Amino acid sequence: MPVDAQEAQVLKDIATKLRIHSVESTSAAGSGHPTSCSSMADIMSVLFFNTMKYDVAEPKSASNDRFVLSKGHAAPILYAAWAEAGLFPVSELQKLRKLDSDLEGHPTPRLNFIDVATGSLGQGLSVACGMAYVGKNLDKAPYRTYCLMGDGESMEGNVWEAMTFAGFYKLDNLCAIIDVNRLGQSDPTPLQHDMEQYKNRVESFGFHGIVVDGHDINELVKAFDEAANTKGKPTCILAKTFKGHDFPEIADLMNWHGKALGDKSASVVEHLKGLLQNASAPNPKIEGPSGAAPDVSIKDVKLSSPPNYKLGDALATRQAYGTALAKVCENNPRVIALDGDMKNSTFSQNVTKQFPERYIECFICEQNLVGVGIGAACRDRTVAFVSTFACFLTRAFDNFRMGVISQTNINVAGSHCGVSIGEDGPSQMALEDLAMFRTLPGATVFYPSDAVATERAVELAANTKGITFIRLSRPATTIVYANDEVFEIGKAKVVKQSDSDKVLVVAAGVTLDEAVKAAKNLEASGVNVRVLDPFTVKPLDAEGVIKNALECGGRIVTVEDHYPEGGIGSAVADVVSGRRDIVLKKLCVQEVPRSGPPKILIEKYGIGADSIVKAVNEIKDA
Amino acid sequence: MPVDAQEAQVLKDIATKLRIHSVESTSAAGSGHPTSCSSMADIMSVLFFNTMKYDVAEPKSASNDRFVLSKGHAAPILYAAWAEAGLFPVSELQKLRKLDSDLEGHPTPRLNFIDVATGSLGQGLSVACGMAYVGKNLDKAPYRTYCLMGDGESMEGNVWEAMTFAGFYKLDNLCAIIDVNRLGQSDPTPLQHDMEQYKNRVESFGFHGIVVDGHDINELVKAFDEAANTKGKPTCILAKTFKGHDFPEIADLMNWHGKALGDKSASVVEHLKGLLQNASAPNPKIEGPSGAAPDVSIKDVKLSSPPNYKLGDALATRQAYGTALAKVCENNPRVIALDGDMKNSTFSQNVTKQFPERYIECFICEQNLVGVGIGAACRDRTVAFVSTFACFLTRAFDNFRMGVISQTNINVAGSHCGVSIGEDGPSQMALEDLAMFRTLPGATVFYPSDAVATERAVELAANTKGITFIRLSRPATTIVYANDEVFEIGKAKVVKQSDSDKVLVVAAGVTLDEAVKAAKNLEASGVNVRVLDPFTVKPLDAEGVIKNALECGGRIVTVEDHYPEGGIGSAVADVVSGRRDIVLKKLCVQEVPRSGPPKILIEKYGIGADSIVKAVNEIKDA
Repeated sequence: MPVDAQEAQVLKDIATKLRIHSVESTSAAGSGHPTSCSSMADIMSVLFFNTMKYDVAEPKSASNDRFVLSKGHAAPILYAAWAEAGLFPVSELQKLRKLDSDLEGHPTPRLNFIDVATGSLGQGLSVACGMAYVGKNLDKAPYRTYCLMGDGESMEGNVWEAMTFAGFYKLDNLCAIIDVNRLGQSDPTPLQHDMEQYKNRVESFGFHGIVVDGHDINELVKAFDEAANTKGKPTCILAKTFKGHDFPEIADLMNWHGKALGDKSASVVEHLKGLLQNASAPNPKIEGPSGAAPDVSIKDVKLSSPPNYKLGDALATRQAYGTALAKVCENNPRVIALDGDMKNSTFSQNVTKQFPERYIECFICEQNLVGVGIGAACRDRTVAFVSTFACFLTRAFDNFRMGVISQTNINVAGSHCGVSIGEDGPSQMALEDLAMFRTLPGATVFYPSDAVATERAVELAANTKGITFIRLSRPATTIVYANDEVFEIGKAKVVKQSDSDKVLVVAAGVTLDEAVKAAKNLEASGVNVRVLDPFTVKPLDAEGVIKNALECGGRIVTVEDHYPEGGIGSAVADVVSGRRDIVLKKLCVQEVPRSGPPKILIEKYGIGADSIVKAVNEIKDA
Repeated sequence: MPVDAQEAQVLKDIATKLRIHSVESTSAAGSGHPTSCSSMADIMSVLFFNTMKYDVAEPKSASNDRFVLSKGHAAPILYAAWAEAGLFPVSELQKLRKLDSDLEGHPTPRLNFIDVATGSLGQGLSVACGMAYVGKNLDKAPYRTYCLMGDGESMEGNVWEAMTFAGFYKLDNLCAIIDVNRLGQSDPTPLQHDMEQYKNRVESFGFHGIVVDGHDINELVKAFDEAANTKGKPTCILAKTFKGHDFPEIADLMNWHGKALGDKSASVVEHLKGLLQNASAPNPKIEGPSGAAPDVSIKDVKLSSPPNYKLGDALATRQAYGTALAKVCENNPRVIALDGDMKNSTFSQNVTKQFPERYIECFICEQNLVGVGIGAACRDRTVAFVSTFACFLTRAFDNFRMGVISQTNINVAGSHCGVSIGEDGPSQMALEDLAMFRTLPGATVFYPSDAVATERAVELAANTKGITFIRLSRPATTIVYANDEVFEIGKAKVVKQSDSDKVLVVAAGVTLDEAVKAAKNLEASGVNVRVLDPFTVKPLDAEGVIKNALECGGRIVTVEDHYPEGGIGSAVADVVSGRRDIVLKKLCVQEVPRSGPPKILIEKYGIGADSIVKAVNEIKDA
């Protein structure tokens, strides 16, 4: 809302106080980014004490305006803003970066006022897009979403994917701010202070662009008001600022990135204090939310009807994924699906047919796809299912990495795994996806082998905290489970066994079919093997693997449509390498594959029935 | 060069022939993307038979104009263009997607006319930027680089990182083309045929934008001429086209993406043949290169002087990286360094001081950073070293994945690995980088523990084919090797041993220092352990690990500043899990860490000397 001269001065004084806190806390820590805080101090003052409507006492209220600090290295000023707003004592700021404080070097949701961890640049706007999309289209609530980025970070491709998204979906409840302070870490940014070029860029992506002097309170207040009143498109405020503004002999100079001010701290703080017009004036009252977001529940999501398949039939797990997705959507109005223009391949299109308002097309922008999913899942607003080809999810590895630090709750499905996709060739084959998702602390990695297991994986994923990943196959696989089979995370299934098994074969997806075929062939030659389907590769059913392996003489063969590192074989190795009574042989894809018919590729790359028979015969007396 | 009406008709006929080949080859294969080929047929005809200057008989000549088909799914028309140009018989096109043919579903350098594999969208322009940068600034040769993208793909953030780069470096020898055929795989693209918005976008990133009718030969010829004559900025030709152009009842319709035409093939081919004005006219003569690129050698790169450190001193390996990088630059004028605005942290800045013309600042755009490196390394033009924080390299996982399929030769250095970075917190800690790089077939993963090993890792990397990765630490580690120590890929080093070792401890980087400290503590309590430094984690020295483990009673403890999956422990598990005579215990970071002092974090997360002592005592009688 508009301010008079006196109110503007109060906001200016708050900005100065935020600068002081930033200098003092980083000096106490001995490290940090005070100059990156200073350039955005006036923006923060206006946002937190004039523009944003939120309940300070309940920072994660679903009705509050949202704020995402995409330039996470400016954490000290974010902490300072919340302290000045009254959430916690200003004295706490001195604990910045200490082991026993949640005021870490970059923000994480260990703090109750942080939605997502930031610090890997360029990801915040995607998250903000997810929040804004939900606010506009699902919550239909008046809360607004603000996202502050640095100018160096605005070069990240992820930002332009998010810009495309926000522009396309006309997210007029979203306001991006770029703090154009001209200087990167080691060089000036490409555009320096070319504000018009920034404006051209954001406008060409469908934003309303407003260039302001980022140190002028009145200009900032007006710009935020203009943003709130701009309908039909998101706004991007381009704030021309100076790095280390109001820090004498530091402002606008290189070589001050990411450094506490050291022996200059005292004089800078003294200078800043001299700028305060009324150090003891009370901060303005913060206005609460202008309307309530609806109460929603994302708990106890269920399939609306049980799986309905016939044992021995065959169906691609990606098809069962689409079926299950529509079923959980039917059960809970807060389940949503997002895809990257692959919905007719991943079968997430099933949602578009039945619940078009709960499908979000994210186009060919995988980083943004994941970021929007993370944003949509914030504050438990939705149960988000994100899908595309599994190989293209590698593009969002950093978003997943940050997602874990963000304690996100998204579900990810990757189709077209492995050489079994066939003729499209190696660029479309995911052969490292299990490795990637297994690295994520707390992630749950499903690799359902048939349609029944896939439906249950979707249901379990919807109710599981943290990132879940469901690996899906392109070709049809045999239905091996009854429709009433009960699945649990971390519980493997024995698919075939006898009293005289010599080897345990662990397989999933297309290789489970191959393993069963191999087991029959071996049986005919007098060698019994047990076949185990892990269902989840993380957590792996360590107990089940060990028990069954020991019953098979301590011999395991793993077989997977994945590269050697990080997949099923590695998960099993982790479980058994500490024991002398179990040995393991891994079958997997050992080189970059080529185009060809799926069945031929499976055998050519050593993961087919013939290869399994050979491996079993090699290991059966070991 | 300009064409008269007759020449234009010849080019139009070639475009039609390319369409016919695309339909026929995908029909023979039973799959593929004929409609995505058809929209760009006229562009291909003009490029290959009028605009580009190249020696058909030597497609990888360093002097040729370059062409990158970023929309790799249109491979059939690329193959058709080279066949029509005379490189191989047109009849070969019928082998598309067959197991015994290199004409795969998406292009790979198994074909002698392909520089890089494409098919994961949005990566081609970065590669083209690398080629163009080298052409303009290192080769200083007249060859030009063309990159053709799809409109759906142009939403990828990677494209806008590349646009930033090309605009900033004024790559006027680069010409991008966007085939704006309006339709994605499952939906129309966000901008559909809004050609002016495309133009605004590319111009706001520093390109000269030209909108043309992409099916008008004369407009295309003129646009490419204008691009060649535009100085001081790259050009982007925005071609308005129709998907499936000239395919009756298919053109401009949804649901024809990625499908052979099936029973419509014959009628479409018949229609296309009817469009040919002179089916038997000879194709135009293709003009050769307009100037020669210099002869260069990237072989036998050496450190210009040996490492020069003192045993027992301490130095961060990232600092030694900077030193070594400058030394290999000194030795060979084709060694270059690229960084993502982290050069003062990774120490790649050492190159900027001595050889500013061989340092390429890529700003905060990690996908483009890697893509430019891959492009710069094409045709053996340079030895490229790409560096940034290791955690941010996760952003380029897909570029690395495609880099392997591209048979690229780049070297990558990632600094600031693990919890040992300290106060900056988890967003800046790489704890999954070893897992990521280990998945890449043929990659070499160095994890040098001291400055001497680091310098040799850089030297070895420069001479090693495929992707190499060098993992670098932020804090100083002890110099444990003499300056004349000889290092080999796949050869571990025993750092401490006795005749009565009970356990083998495998450690690297900061944990090697911890392991040595633990070994001394254990020795004092009467327990001898052997300490092994793997030097390369991929390939791991299997023989050395097994031999030393057996000499230690078959007991191994691995300890690493990395998550449990995919790192040193997993590499060792892969080597020993097939044996009953060796057991393994893994120490690693088990949860998302937090900000704090490095030494405290190392012990807090279970990878310090105390944890090693405890683990050894637990396993020493196993």
